[in-house]
Amino acid sequence: MKSHPLRKQIEEIVQLTDEEFTFVLEHFRSKRFKKHQIVLHDGDYANYDFFVIKGLMKVSRLDLDGKDHILQFGMENWWITDAEAFHHKSKSTLMVTCLEDTEVMALTLGNKEKLSRELPKMQYFFLKKTTNGYIALQKRILCFLSSNANERYHNLLTIYPGLIQRVPKAMIASYLGVTRETLSRLSKMT
Amino acid sequence: MKSHPLRKQIEEIVQLTDEEFTFVLEHFRSKRFKKHQIVLHDGDYANYDFFVIKGLMKVSRLDLDGKDHILQFGMENWWITDAEAFHHKSKSTLMVTCLEDTEVMALTLGNKEKLSRELPKMQYFFLKKTTNGYIALQKRILCFLSSNANERYHNLLTIYPGLIQRVPKAMIASYLGVTRETLSRLSKMT
Repeated sequence: MKSHPLRKQIEEIVQLTDEEFTFVLEHFRSKRFKKHQIVLHDGDYANYDFFVIKGLMKVSRLDLDGKDHILQFGMENWWITDAEAFHHKSKSTLMVTCLEDTEVMALTLGNKEKLSRELPKMQYFFLKKTTNGYIALQKRILCFLSSNANERYHNLLTIYPGLIQRVPKAMIASYLGVTRETLSRLSKMT
Repeated sequence: MKSHPLRKQIEEIVQLTDEEFTFVLEHFRSKRFKKHQIVLHDGDYANYDFFVIKGLMKVSRLDLDGKDHILQFGMENWWITDAEAFHHKSKSTLMVTCLEDTEVMALTLGNKEKLSRELPKMQYFFLKKTTNGYIALQKRILCFLSSNANERYHNLLTIYPGLIQRVPKAMIASYLGVTRETLSRLSKMT
């Protein structure tokens, strides 16, 4: 049980006993999805935050022109959902889609709050993960502000190792907010 | 004491007794800065997260061409710092500057952790605030991805009411990542 990916991630921040980790696991539900499956539709409630055990998902916004803007990828050991809809119990403005057959552990907001209340170590874990996510988004915004597509591309390589081998180039371009031509130039520079 | 701005903000999320709020306050230090004062220099350690009581600050990155990219403003009731340097105890890559005479309550990371440990309600408060900050940054990124400067401008008006009357237009343009000309067009559309 020591080698469970969720336990490994939690124990990078706080240590758990076997009993505590069993208690944590009881708050999750295992789910399996197929490649291309839309797990959360725009307009639906986001009932779960997903911890990815195996596979690959994306969260994106489809604009009125049919263009898909990718906000985040979620591969092994990532958390992924429409954060606003999940935390505010509002209708989703984003879509969560599987890019591969995917296996996740799904956590409801109710269970996240219960875990945080009953095991303060888990609240500390969620606080640290959210803080790190916040810092990563600030870096991405700084890259947009300085129009530094090259830095954006290298950030992507760092935070998602192996991703570019797993998804079409058009999706990488969508995540970076650049054209296919710019992406092609960036990847040649590496 | 009920009307203290920090208490008001905390009590939007969790309720505190007078004793608890007194305990919270003991972890902060009051500071006053002058207009134009640089409170955190690029390369220094970010010892404090600032809760703004009165005044206005910005956190920005000065690039090699001397261009200042504004990541965030902090006016009354905002928290502002170089989040990465503060939380990771690393050297700052950003600058925090006062745009007006400013009065803050300053919190060290040690005291933030101590408060979180000794008063789990405060940990819950920090978790909720960080989550909301994370969601706000995701929205800003989506605006960049869809190149929607108009939505970006309206986001700014919503989250910083009164800001455009308090800072030069060049700073608004820097925050939005647009030229002065584009900003001028956007503000005429309002």
